[in-house]
Amino acid sequence: LAAEDGPALLAILDPLHAADIADLVEQLPEDERDTFVRLYGDKFDGEVLSELDERLREDVVHAMEPAVLAEAVRVLETDDVVDLIEDLDDPQTEAVLEALDDDDRVVVEQSLSYPEESAGRLMQRELVVAPDHWNVGQTIDFLRSQDDLPEQFYHVILVDPRMRPTGYVTLGRLMGSAREVPLTDITEESFRTIPVLQDEGEVAYAFNQYHLISAPVVDADERLVGVITIDDAMAILDEEHEEDILRLAGVDEESSLSDKIVDTTKRRFPWLAVNLVTSILASLVIAQFDEVIAQFVALAVLMPIVASMGGNAGTQSLTVAVRAIATKDLTSANLWRVIWREAAVGLVNGIIFAVVMGVVGVIWFSTPLLGVVIAVAMVVNLVIAGLAGVIIPVVLDRMDIDPALASGAFVTTVTDVVGFFAFLGLAAVLLI
Amino acid sequence: LAAEDGPALLAILDPLHAADIADLVEQLPEDERDTFVRLYGDKFDGEVLSELDERLREDVVHAMEPAVLAEAVRVLETDDVVDLIEDLDDPQTEAVLEALDDDDRVVVEQSLSYPEESAGRLMQRELVVAPDHWNVGQTIDFLRSQDDLPEQFYHVILVDPRMRPTGYVTLGRLMGSAREVPLTDITEESFRTIPVLQDEGEVAYAFNQYHLISAPVVDADERLVGVITIDDAMAILDEEHEEDILRLAGVDEESSLSDKIVDTTKRRFPWLAVNLVTSILASLVIAQFDEVIAQFVALAVLMPIVASMGGNAGTQSLTVAVRAIATKDLTSANLWRVIWREAAVGLVNGIIFAVVMGVVGVIWFSTPLLGVVIAVAMVVNLVIAGLAGVIIPVVLDRMDIDPALASGAFVTTVTDVVGFFAFLGLAAVLLI
Repeated sequence: LAAEDGPALLAILDPLHAADIADLVEQLPEDERDTFVRLYGDKFDGEVLSELDERLREDVVHAMEPAVLAEAVRVLETDDVVDLIEDLDDPQTEAVLEALDDDDRVVVEQSLSYPEESAGRLMQRELVVAPDHWNVGQTIDFLRSQDDLPEQFYHVILVDPRMRPTGYVTLGRLMGSAREVPLTDITEESFRTIPVLQDEGEVAYAFNQYHLISAPVVDADERLVGVITIDDAMAILDEEHEEDILRLAGVDEESSLSDKIVDTTKRRFPWLAVNLVTSILASLVIAQFDEVIAQFVALAVLMPIVASMGGNAGTQSLTVAVRAIATKDLTSANLWRVIWREAAVGLVNGIIFAVVMGVVGVIWFSTPLLGVVIAVAMVVNLVIAGLAGVIIPVVLDRMDIDPALASGAFVTTVTDVVGFFAFLGLAAVLLI
Repeated sequence: LAAEDGPALLAILDPLHAADIADLVEQLPEDERDTFVRLYGDKFDGEVLSELDERLREDVVHAMEPAVLAEAVRVLETDDVVDLIEDLDDPQTEAVLEALDDDDRVVVEQSLSYPEESAGRLMQRELVVAPDHWNVGQTIDFLRSQDDLPEQFYHVILVDPRMRPTGYVTLGRLMGSAREVPLTDITEESFRTIPVLQDEGEVAYAFNQYHLISAPVVDADERLVGVITIDDAMAILDEEHEEDILRLAGVDEESSLSDKIVDTTKRRFPWLAVNLVTSILASLVIAQFDEVIAQFVALAVLMPIVASMGGNAGTQSLTVAVRAIATKDLTSANLWRVIWREAAVGLVNGIIFAVVMGVVGVIWFSTPLLGVVIAVAMVVNLVIAGLAGVIIPVVLDRMDIDPALASGAFVTTVTDVVGFFAFLGLAAVLLI
């Protein structure tokens, strides 16, 4: 690449899958990326473009010649074009739309009229339907007579005369059945329609839960408007998980390794700011006990242990609870049982670590009462951590706030404040 | 359920999908679960069983009548049976195996001979192949003449005379092509084989990366032994993500809401024990400076802020790095750039928060030098947090240790130790 050797580059890239080429581009430093786009030139096809990370895509599209771009998008299916342009800015969107055929442009514009992250954005319009009164023979003859079948399709969707889907038949069953069998006899049990406005996270959940391969998308009148296939659902599932992991760690869910330093700093800043405020709260609790600490510096030495154990236990409960909410395993039916369990687990682990730390405290500082103080604080803190770890995400979820995003800050604040208060307050009573 | 009303229960459950019934069972308290199994009786089918959480499954199988169990597993596809019995104990495995037909039993036993979590365990044996010299017409006639085609299949796999897969054709393309077209002209570009011993995580990655719908599995001689479909890959992707999230939080990856209190306590304990040791390390650092703290109690008040900011910044870098390693976005090609970026981000955020905390420190305790101390400590700690957050997971990964599992403890230790040392050490130099 440094040698600007175009033909050599092409020779290397030729056998690679578009997804791997996109990964390579993502790993290039910014200045080399433009060189790459220039050298790769008109071989840069739509597939690579749609595999690219969203934020890079804008830069790359910007660096591409308009003619190359137009050619690149023309080969894509309409759902990929929608996915491609929803992240571009207006002039670029215009350029891509103009490159499309009239038919495709209408379809893409229709998809863009659905809200972001809805089933409508995800679905493809290329689909294969048959009237639900047909039999196998009629359907096979019909399919064989078509010359513009979609490249990828796995089911034939049955529709009633008003275009409402009533079932679907896999191509495999169609192939394996006698010509006179009515289609309605060989439909799949797993048939489920998806409302066009449904959130894409719910769509991915439905595919995973019910093992769907494809599902028809319907509008408010139950009429068929498109189809979503499992590969799109899998990509969404992957994205949603990624978001959850990053949010739990207090990182903006759109973070990526190819972000610039300024962007990354901005994305990390808010959570650190929240954390600063909550840790100042904890400091204020400590400040109430400054005279106790001045007399017993051992308290200052042991303080981080109380905070750290509480924080960790809280994060454990919290993560389990957030995941259980996301997978719909935590419901009002078992909520009280789960809360009770977390408190009990906190109690048991609290007692074990209380004994350990009590002994350590006594030996280290040869003050038996100090051992009692840290032991009791440990039990209180771990029980509270267990309770806060479940209750806070559940409450946030009921308030329609994403528990993955906000729970961490609240739980740590609770464990820090309660932990320091229990530890130092008890010390003030017992040691002075 | 409390009324032991069997017929009413059946009436409620009848319209539900097996996955939803399994979710219901998972939410029942332990004693009601047995009642459920008894009442649901012989309607308890294999589908529900294979949707159940692994740990519950053992209890439920135990509670089922042998005849009901035998009937239940007989309707399952072989890959589901494998998935079902790999978590059961020996006598139960025997009981299930005996319930199978001879053919199926051989297939299941063969699958079980592959290592756990390998492609061999995941694949199904039911597959549809065609010699690669056939044309569309021959293939369609062949498929139409078979009467035991698998229930779900989407591709016909082309094989050479030695049963090595050479490509695959979607049923859709087959339907849409003229009879005389050779199969080799309409194969999919995305064709990829999967070695039978490949780790299931790698399999899921390949499906997601290359948008595969199904992929032939081959043995060491490249011969076809089975096929993996995208729905299984999606389930694995989901599991792997779940594991990563739980591991990052220091929770055993097999945790589940239906665990008993004792189990949960045991699963949470090890990480808390590790955390206790590392937080004692931090305490030892503080203990070195006990005289400084005795003179300036303000230091004890501010200490948690330094620790907490460092810990949070470290977790942010760490999570991004662990994810980037998992998705293969962090490689030796961009490692140095990423390390440099994390350090720079830490520096910029460090400076911002240093200014804020410096001012807070000065106003709160009216000691300008204390403001300088906390400001400098903040910068040092956030830069170190950024560096440790990337370097530690990368090093663990190179040592073949799962970075999601172990990085947290190391990173927090580093940020705590460095943070306290910088803060208190600087205070010792400047304030005394």
